[in-house]
Amino acid sequence: MVIRPYGYAIWEAIQDYLNVKFKETGHSNMYFPQFIPYSFIEKEASHVEGFSPELALVTIGGGKELEEKLVVRPTSETIVNHMFTKWIQSYRDLPLMINQWANVTRWEMRTKPFIRTLEFLWQEGHTAHATLEEAEKEAMQMIDVYTKFAYEQAAIPVIPGRKSRVETFAGANRTYTIEAMMGDRKALQAGTSHNLGQNFSRAFGTQFMDENGQIEHVWQTSWAISTRFVGGIIMTHGDDAGLMLPPNIAPIQVVIVPIWKKGDEKSAVMEAVASVQNILKEAGIRVKVDDSELRTPGWKFNFYEMKGVPIRLEIGPRDVTNKSVVISRRDVPGKQGKEFGVSMDPSILVDHVKGRLEEIQASLLEKAIAFRDSNIVDVSSYGELKEAIAEGKWARGPWSASDADELKVKEETSATIRCFPFEQPEGAKKCFMTGNPAEEVAIFAKSY
Amino acid sequence: MVIRPYGYAIWEAIQDYLNVKFKETGHSNMYFPQFIPYSFIEKEASHVEGFSPELALVTIGGGKELEEKLVVRPTSETIVNHMFTKWIQSYRDLPLMINQWANVTRWEMRTKPFIRTLEFLWQEGHTAHATLEEAEKEAMQMIDVYTKFAYEQAAIPVIPGRKSRVETFAGANRTYTIEAMMGDRKALQAGTSHNLGQNFSRAFGTQFMDENGQIEHVWQTSWAISTRFVGGIIMTHGDDAGLMLPPNIAPIQVVIVPIWKKGDEKSAVMEAVASVQNILKEAGIRVKVDDSELRTPGWKFNFYEMKGVPIRLEIGPRDVTNKSVVISRRDVPGKQGKEFGVSMDPSILVDHVKGRLEEIQASLLEKAIAFRDSNIVDVSSYGELKEAIAEGKWARGPWSASDADELKVKEETSATIRCFPFEQPEGAKKCFMTGNPAEEVAIFAKSY
Repeated sequence: MVIRPYGYAIWEAIQDYLNVKFKETGHSNMYFPQFIPYSFIEKEASHVEGFSPELALVTIGGGKELEEKLVVRPTSETIVNHMFTKWIQSYRDLPLMINQWANVTRWEMRTKPFIRTLEFLWQEGHTAHATLEEAEKEAMQMIDVYTKFAYEQAAIPVIPGRKSRVETFAGANRTYTIEAMMGDRKALQAGTSHNLGQNFSRAFGTQFMDENGQIEHVWQTSWAISTRFVGGIIMTHGDDAGLMLPPNIAPIQVVIVPIWKKGDEKSAVMEAVASVQNILKEAGIRVKVDDSELRTPGWKFNFYEMKGVPIRLEIGPRDVTNKSVVISRRDVPGKQGKEFGVSMDPSILVDHVKGRLEEIQASLLEKAIAFRDSNIVDVSSYGELKEAIAEGKWARGPWSASDADELKVKEETSATIRCFPFEQPEGAKKCFMTGNPAEEVAIFAKSY
Repeated sequence: MVIRPYGYAIWEAIQDYLNVKFKETGHSNMYFPQFIPYSFIEKEASHVEGFSPELALVTIGGGKELEEKLVVRPTSETIVNHMFTKWIQSYRDLPLMINQWANVTRWEMRTKPFIRTLEFLWQEGHTAHATLEEAEKEAMQMIDVYTKFAYEQAAIPVIPGRKSRVETFAGANRTYTIEAMMGDRKALQAGTSHNLGQNFSRAFGTQFMDENGQIEHVWQTSWAISTRFVGGIIMTHGDDAGLMLPPNIAPIQVVIVPIWKKGDEKSAVMEAVASVQNILKEAGIRVKVDDSELRTPGWKFNFYEMKGVPIRLEIGPRDVTNKSVVISRRDVPGKQGKEFGVSMDPSILVDHVKGRLEEIQASLLEKAIAFRDSNIVDVSSYGELKEAIAEGKWARGPWSASDADELKVKEETSATIRCFPFEQPEGAKKCFMTGNPAEEVAIFAKSY
């Protein structure tokens, strides 16, 4: 997959936001090698089992056959633990909290742009702690950072929760996830945070001396969000006319299209356009002027609608005379989304545009919540689940059945447990599969 | 190589600066796959010749032997051209100017942290133009961006110039370089910019229709700076006590060390420390407080000297009473670099610290220029060159001899032509090797 500038700019917006949050929560960026000796991968039993079908292997380097094959990292827990073992001696070295922005490789046969690709970009956080409680708190904190990002920046109303045992990350004790409903109602796992327990620290001998002089294995977490999230944004908010980007992460928040017919109109229009551009830019708004003379205004309207730019400003000769602009909202089609005669006066225009951007941001989230909620069905029997899934919906119901039952559901309906949501209904529950008491409801859906 | 947080933070400072400059000069970030089919690499004859000894090859993916070996990118000209060929049709699509931040792999046997590593991080710019003149202008513009960065941010007085034919990038017509003198007087090639001519566009059939309807091959450039530059900063400015970081790219510009002995002194000192920290932070200064009670102030002084933090502030009980701080400059050792009784008043302190940071930035550059200039010898015979190189210096002299002569110098002295500097002395010159007329002086040195 090649990531072209517009998609990459969305990824940069994701990076800019998360980088600040990661640093605020005490993490430092660093970088680990991407080639991992095969023997490292083999050290944690369930990890190698989970990842070995997906590995890309380097066997030749500098013209020679290598003695030990090198794995192109599918994730970095093993090489991170190899280094943590050298860096950690005592409780004074803990917690150790790092993050890396990197490319990873997982051999995929059925690829889909942004969602499932052989190589993708991501951030992976890795932490080591003195106690299980601290590791658990960290894993929860990071899924919370992801949840807030999804709601507030990407306008995606993800459902945070815990993965089932079957769906837990290879090498983790617990996996937390945020699950997003795409426009086609398939689920997208948009970010995960793992409580790794002592699985990797035991495999790699990552130990520390505690305050009482006892040698213990560290407790660890890891957590990641990838370029898949860019696909999630595209598939949550689009419509038939193209993308619809949430203002907070849109590479272009406002596009200005100058309109003029006769040659003598041009200079006045372009002067006004430049002035409005400056006013918005100074106010911190990401604005682009498309003054190309190779395309008509109508072509540009369609083009930036397709690109999902939240607001379009049109400025023509009459607007120049009236010292006003025409504003169109991407999320409200047709005349309803159009305002005429909005003053160019900086003190009015800036507040007006900022207000509209906020409205669009809120409105996209609201619509996505309504769509999500109208497509989740509460079920109390396996028959009801099958029906919901067959209709393309998500099914939510009490679940305490076995791993084997979970795999049976997958085989028969293609739906998997997306998560046990953190938000649970009150009261006694009965497993819809077995009729036994159940502590929690689970959400089932087909997924990417 | 693992890049730990402090080194990575220097790389982030480099990224932050260059990213802005690249965008200002019209480039967009994007991302290309790192696995390149082997057949791509073979298409440009001198490119494959130059890179094939250094390649890492993936031969197994998803458990199966691959039909075509994949090269882990050593640089991306080939895959970029593969895509450019699809994206470029007409002169309207030009110039096409992109950049990518990525990891690259070159199989190195003799590695050295930051300077020569099997995998490193870099940015690689790639552009396509309608004319040779435009490509040449772009290649020169980017070496100029690098030169300004080196001088103004990294305080490294690099010498920009053109590589000899022997040292030109595999696949380029011309390579421009910035050459830096390290503390041990070895040369470091710190950044390069290539005019690729039509070499890759002919190999990949990257063509466009010009304004007259003629089909032409595009003219291209590529240019790169890598994590090697972090090594360059470290090896330019250090002394026996450790690093010495230029304030403009130092992850920590000011470290505050609180000093207190009796328990009842602590709260007043820490209150003053917090207040000073806030004052500096608000002013945009990167400040860190080290309030650990596990280490003594003396230990901290040494530690942050070693880390190269430009300014240290000490605040003790007497300073609290006087509402003042003690300031120490990293670049001026001992008492001379120490100021007592600098007022904590924000209106005085901020200007004072900012002024000192600027002085340190300027002083590091000045010292590096003096060091460089005292270690370059003008030579007018091969004997003089041998003498200069044997003393560990750089030799500068008129050169118009053959590639074979250049290789002879390398064999006999280990020195190579680093560049024909852009800045040339006036007047007629005679090649110091052959006695023939020479148009330019070249700089010879041993290098990393």
